[in-house]
Amino acid sequence: MSGSAPSLPHLIIIGCGFGGLEAARSLARAALRITLIDRSNHHLFQPLLYQVATAGLSAPSIAAPIRHMLRSQRNLTVLMAEVSSIATAAREIELADGQRLPYDYLIVASGATHSYFGRDDWAAHAPGLKTLADAFELRGRLLSAFERAETLADEAARQPWLNFIVIGAGPTGVEMAGTLAEIARHTLRDEFRRIDPAAAQVLLLEGSDRVLQAFKPELSAQAQRQLQGLGVQVRTGCKVVGIDAEGVDVEQAGRRERLPARTVVWAAGVAASPLGRQLGVPLDRAGRVIVEPGLNIPGHAEVFVIGDLAAAHSLDYRGERRPVPGVSPAAKQMGRHVARQIIGRLKGQVLPAAELPFRYRDYGALATIGRKAAVADLGRLQFSGYPAWLFWLFVHIYFLIGFRNRLVVLMDWAWAYWSFQRYARIVVEPVSGEERH
Amino acid sequence: MSGSAPSLPHLIIIGCGFGGLEAARSLARAALRITLIDRSNHHLFQPLLYQVATAGLSAPSIAAPIRHMLRSQRNLTVLMAEVSSIATAAREIELADGQRLPYDYLIVASGATHSYFGRDDWAAHAPGLKTLADAFELRGRLLSAFERAETLADEAARQPWLNFIVIGAGPTGVEMAGTLAEIARHTLRDEFRRIDPAAAQVLLLEGSDRVLQAFKPELSAQAQRQLQGLGVQVRTGCKVVGIDAEGVDVEQAGRRERLPARTVVWAAGVAASPLGRQLGVPLDRAGRVIVEPGLNIPGHAEVFVIGDLAAAHSLDYRGERRPVPGVSPAAKQMGRHVARQIIGRLKGQVLPAAELPFRYRDYGALATIGRKAAVADLGRLQFSGYPAWLFWLFVHIYFLIGFRNRLVVLMDWAWAYWSFQRYARIVVEPVSGEERH
Repeated sequence: MSGSAPSLPHLIIIGCGFGGLEAARSLARAALRITLIDRSNHHLFQPLLYQVATAGLSAPSIAAPIRHMLRSQRNLTVLMAEVSSIATAAREIELADGQRLPYDYLIVASGATHSYFGRDDWAAHAPGLKTLADAFELRGRLLSAFERAETLADEAARQPWLNFIVIGAGPTGVEMAGTLAEIARHTLRDEFRRIDPAAAQVLLLEGSDRVLQAFKPELSAQAQRQLQGLGVQVRTGCKVVGIDAEGVDVEQAGRRERLPARTVVWAAGVAASPLGRQLGVPLDRAGRVIVEPGLNIPGHAEVFVIGDLAAAHSLDYRGERRPVPGVSPAAKQMGRHVARQIIGRLKGQVLPAAELPFRYRDYGALATIGRKAAVADLGRLQFSGYPAWLFWLFVHIYFLIGFRNRLVVLMDWAWAYWSFQRYARIVVEPVSGEERH
Repeated sequence: MSGSAPSLPHLIIIGCGFGGLEAARSLARAALRITLIDRSNHHLFQPLLYQVATAGLSAPSIAAPIRHMLRSQRNLTVLMAEVSSIATAAREIELADGQRLPYDYLIVASGATHSYFGRDDWAAHAPGLKTLADAFELRGRLLSAFERAETLADEAARQPWLNFIVIGAGPTGVEMAGTLAEIARHTLRDEFRRIDPAAAQVLLLEGSDRVLQAFKPELSAQAQRQLQGLGVQVRTGCKVVGIDAEGVDVEQAGRRERLPARTVVWAAGVAASPLGRQLGVPLDRAGRVIVEPGLNIPGHAEVFVIGDLAAAHSLDYRGERRPVPGVSPAAKQMGRHVARQIIGRLKGQVLPAAELPFRYRDYGALATIGRKAAVADLGRLQFSGYPAWLFWLFVHIYFLIGFRNRLVVLMDWAWAYWSFQRYARIVVEPVSGEERH
């Protein structure tokens, strides 16, 4: 490898999401060799994935090719590969193609995937939203649903194609539901001759008692009002007990109900990456790795777990120990914290005891509901509505990677805002021959 | 249907490529009902499809949602559906879902697909480039090939992943080969640590004696020189006799040769849409429908075939009868010619005999080779090199649909030209679990 002596320590980072990327960049000048492994070739700006799923942005606007981003970092090699196993005793990992890579330090940042609470058969009927493949699948289904309704002569046969159900009222579910309602009522207006797209029903189902469970109750209430203003039907205390190709079965207040819908979106459960199980240490109920305060695993000071895969805790501003949420800023901060420790150790130093535990700085949470509505919880400051939406807009553009991406996204949104249009309305013909009838 | 009396004649247009779209638009004010059917939801600007396949443009830049484009045309209904059969005696078509639609006029404009000259087993190893699905497949394969090479420790195992073969030196093949060479030599420079992407070999194989067979020989020679200047190895008089997952077998000058390559692009043969066979009239060897001079089929003045599906002839400027080429301007002109006849008949008129035969106006042909090179054949005027490339650039942007598309494409290209970068470098994780090893 160019420019690196074989005697340098070798760090392997698995996963190039927010955590892995931040760790890699923070070590740009460190005296070690880094191998960054991801099974896709791009870093994904996940907060905007729902925009690709709803045809508002094209995929390249929110995804940056990893090796292009990091091409100037000479101590870093990027590999697009899948990691099949980790052997912490031997200090090596194994790739899907059988290659073994030894390491001196390991950061596992492979994130989370969907959890269907044990009902993996639901996955085929209710795709989630974690990857670009997910976003394309959802986009194809939602656009095709309106198309299918338009071809049907029978009105009764049409309505299930115009019913959309989103399961889970966290930020992703809220954003999807709000955007679906906008698409039906505004974007597609005038474009159909047989159906009225505004007749589409968008249901948002939530098992707990309020939407945006992680936000303050006043903001949950605001968000629900804004959703309803957009035409979304919000049902809280509503538990999903079955999903098939034609709809969803729910239980609410002791009664069971059938909700016919041809398009169902899963935004309800998250499960940690299977790589967590490879580490041989205790996991929490969601499969996340229970890490020590410094983010390493028990018994191995050289193995760290960060991001959505980690079950980490931090003291909040009141000094209380709270779980670190699975959000992008937390992943980035964890990446930096691990990098700091590694840099110290390379110099033969250990962080002072007071600085060793990870401290999460909570800058607040944002969720957008529609083209003019959002909620923002910045700790002592909360606001909603149009100002929150503007704030949300600028934060997201700022954190996008690359000038061009920011410019194109800004352009897309400015135009879309003005004209209600969405510019990525592509349905790719089914390659495998599967069609939904 | 809004605003249309049931007594108006019904026109069905199958296919929303250049021909079908032009026919539909030309009939915007005609007193009839139009149903425009396409199995995808978008109109594709095919000349730029190779840009999506080589990660230079995102899909929405070259694809426009049909019903959005035509939303103001009140006499038109758009259906996203697949046509399974056509019954010309009964004057009705059947959709894949079993619905039957009667018509008074029918325009079949369903275009062409790939032909593997009877060897359909080659399709899995050498994708073509006709649809967005094709472009995504090719893009994923070519980006993944460099990624795979980077993960391989063994140098001998790497080279086939760095060998790219393009089969067929028409405009599509020439554009793909030139762009692949640019990607290897410029775009990906500095991004890899183990491989040198400039070590990639790009082979362009052509069965006939020159590239761009449809152009004048001087331009073919120019194009070949430009390709070679980019690093493409051009092999003419080279016939493909076998394709598998690991390479291509060819016969040249009586000798058989094995060319190892993990990425093969098919740009060699085109076959007409299977719907042509539904019409019960003679077809040519490529499956195209042999149409009468007015573009209708024999025995049915109300059924027209246009675009790549039609085997049409026209008198050239010398008065000689020549086949109409399968190019976008020809399809558009055919669409307009059919529309003109239908408009006349709705008024109870028939076109004068001299105007009935379709006359193709050949404005010339363009092919681009790389970022600064192209060939243009405008009849009496031919030119090549940088001026041809500028001309090609402006023609393509002009014919794109929609201001936003034009602006974004111009921006992408301006930036890419200056920086050699390509902005749509996405590999979507394999959804079906297939991986190439």
